[in-house]
Amino acid sequence: MTFDALSRDRIETLHAEAEQAYRTLGEAGLTLDLTRGKPSPAQLDLSAGLLSLPGTDFRAADGTDTRNYGGLTGLTELREIFAELLGIPVAQLLAADNASLALMHDTLTFAMLHGTPDSPAPWGAAPVKFICPAPGYDRHFALTEHLGIEMLVVDMLDDGPDLDQVRALVGDPAVKGIWLVPTYANPTGAVVSHEKAAALAALETAAPDFRIYWDNAYAVHHLTDERTTTAEIVGLCASAGNPNRPLVFASTSKITFAGSGVSFLGGSPETIAWYLRHVAFRTIGPDKVNQLRHARFLQDAEGVHRLMDGHRAVLAPKFEATLQILAERLGPHDVATWTRPRGGYFVSLDVPDGTATRVVALAKAAGISLTPAGASFPYGRDPRDRNIRIAPSFPSMTDLTAAMDGLATCVLLAATAQALESGTGRS
Amino acid sequence: MTFDALSRDRIETLHAEAEQAYRTLGEAGLTLDLTRGKPSPAQLDLSAGLLSLPGTDFRAADGTDTRNYGGLTGLTELREIFAELLGIPVAQLLAADNASLALMHDTLTFAMLHGTPDSPAPWGAAPVKFICPAPGYDRHFALTEHLGIEMLVVDMLDDGPDLDQVRALVGDPAVKGIWLVPTYANPTGAVVSHEKAAALAALETAAPDFRIYWDNAYAVHHLTDERTTTAEIVGLCASAGNPNRPLVFASTSKITFAGSGVSFLGGSPETIAWYLRHVAFRTIGPDKVNQLRHARFLQDAEGVHRLMDGHRAVLAPKFEATLQILAERLGPHDVATWTRPRGGYFVSLDVPDGTATRVVALAKAAGISLTPAGASFPYGRDPRDRNIRIAPSFPSMTDLTAAMDGLATCVLLAATAQALESGTGRS
Repeated sequence: MTFDALSRDRIETLHAEAEQAYRTLGEAGLTLDLTRGKPSPAQLDLSAGLLSLPGTDFRAADGTDTRNYGGLTGLTELREIFAELLGIPVAQLLAADNASLALMHDTLTFAMLHGTPDSPAPWGAAPVKFICPAPGYDRHFALTEHLGIEMLVVDMLDDGPDLDQVRALVGDPAVKGIWLVPTYANPTGAVVSHEKAAALAALETAAPDFRIYWDNAYAVHHLTDERTTTAEIVGLCASAGNPNRPLVFASTSKITFAGSGVSFLGGSPETIAWYLRHVAFRTIGPDKVNQLRHARFLQDAEGVHRLMDGHRAVLAPKFEATLQILAERLGPHDVATWTRPRGGYFVSLDVPDGTATRVVALAKAAGISLTPAGASFPYGRDPRDRNIRIAPSFPSMTDLTAAMDGLATCVLLAATAQALESGTGRS
Repeated sequence: MTFDALSRDRIETLHAEAEQAYRTLGEAGLTLDLTRGKPSPAQLDLSAGLLSLPGTDFRAADGTDTRNYGGLTGLTELREIFAELLGIPVAQLLAADNASLALMHDTLTFAMLHGTPDSPAPWGAAPVKFICPAPGYDRHFALTEHLGIEMLVVDMLDDGPDLDQVRALVGDPAVKGIWLVPTYANPTGAVVSHEKAAALAALETAAPDFRIYWDNAYAVHHLTDERTTTAEIVGLCASAGNPNRPLVFASTSKITFAGSGVSFLGGSPETIAWYLRHVAFRTIGPDKVNQLRHARFLQDAEGVHRLMDGHRAVLAPKFEATLQILAERLGPHDVATWTRPRGGYFVSLDVPDGTATRVVALAKAAGISLTPAGASFPYGRDPRDRNIRIAPSFPSMTDLTAAMDGLATCVLLAATAQALESGTGRS
């Protein structure tokens, strides 16, 4: 990924072309946004039926009046649908409110203040460290840092975290857990293999209360015909004798509505009981009317898959356009690599080392908002300053192609500028 | 409230009558529940319109697509309605999800882990104490105990907490706050007077970060023609130079649906900013579709009042029946006192000292569930074992009158038994 093989003249020509393209870009006066993995209006329209549900029949299948207090575990009929999708027994899967991030926050907070069932003391009583495969999800890292938990970076590979790096860390009893997005990871699209999941389930850790925070945000969010299946971490950990190790998170934020969906927490019976014991001091129960609304609308696991096919029909062309522009504009120059995700919400772009910050600044000056360089790394620090997360879902196709074309221009401009500054190229 | 003036023969006759009535009660095989302040189905039916809202128009007044991520402060049009009702500027009132208890939990947790804007350190770094006027709300006390905060009991009087007792405690810098339900308090129905609210706002406390947890759960929940107004604690504290002292909580749990309403947090600009700074790590935003649903259904502050008139039409007769049975069955014997609330959800019954636990056990054996004796006191300990909380809202009128009549029988049986055991009465 360098210009080593090119002549200096050729690099200067490329730079001049990029400068000209960047001037044209600036004159276009764009205001485009590739920052967050938000569903587009066309995707949200797929769940329009939710907006007038449940209608007059407010009773759950077991006769519960969903309008009243109670029901801390969530509605059974909704849990059944996602128990099948997530491969977790219904009794070990709770349905909650609109944000799985809130479940991650709350379970971490409970552990900090009270400890887990396997903890000798509250986590907050001593220093706590978490393993953070990177690049990863910026909100995981922000939450972890906010709680005063030290983040230890390991590499996120195509089939999951680098296990050798993980093994080198878990001998420290302060290391209490690892973050993972197992399916179509944010931002690389990686899928944790069954073998790596099994190894993580069986990992010998110094901490008796080591936890896998398994954020299965994109479990059914396929971009191809293939319905990738996620390793069943709850069963794997139980088989390995570490039943309380996994906490599984999921939500319908990118299935139905991003702000008003439902979320799920799965784990061992003891983990579920632990969560319920603590959350009972926080609430009398989740929004059961919204859960009923979702159960009625989604119907069953196949109903979820059908809905996701609809999302795919909207999303896949946007990913194709994104990849096509990257291939056309950057491919010939061998200045960048990028992921070709089979699901999820992101394309992860690696530009020449040391230029990501410059690319993001150039794009911003041209009216194209990108997630800050380094956002996918703990503490916002990309050690090679090369990673840029692209979120193609929200913009219209017109805006997306304009933004991607502009981004490619910025990558070329920064890369050629750096090459010239550093004296790269044959003279 | 004793049988001192009666002859021993008269007490024995009353006891025999109570025993007979209790036998009859047992034979009726009742299964009745007076435990929780739940709305009845007839009350929930008043908000049936919510069940098919918002319909096709999912945009907020400012054009926000409520189906998507974002909007941590909650929808402006909903905040405007409750800002007027609660006497708090819109900018200082947030709309959140379905449980104000969750807001109390989260703000306490944030203070424990991170401290408040006025805290020299996180609360959790040293012992913390809270002042708990009693009788009070059992869930406040349970949450406080769960967080390891020591509870200091003061008397809840008809116009608010006993201020002399409060003043004797706040010289301790570990005393970080006080719980209050200012309007139609749970369980006594007391309303904190403007004078007491002003005194609390101006109170000199050793802790620079002393907080008033002002749980205005029953702000508009009148049982008479009089719309009692709550002291405006946010303004009072600001005027007194303690702007960050109050945290105001409210919800529509007993206005619309108990499990799927919306909640509110009010306070100074700095308090609101503090909450938003921390909650941003927990969620991307509340359920805006549910907030839009509520704003459309309630329309404006007067719409809330109209809805509450509907609740009153259902509730007031139940409170009247409750009070009438207490007056008829217990009044002649001078063995108990009780509150005559002008709003809220409870009647607080004081039976002869040392008999509340026995009354609750007798009722339970006869199929009538009551909140455990002592529930309205910190640590579940009623020092005089005399207080019983009655929740008349949920049962049908038939069930309610049967349960209240049975409860009166249990009170008389326990009172006469105690009198005979202790040798009370003229011989």
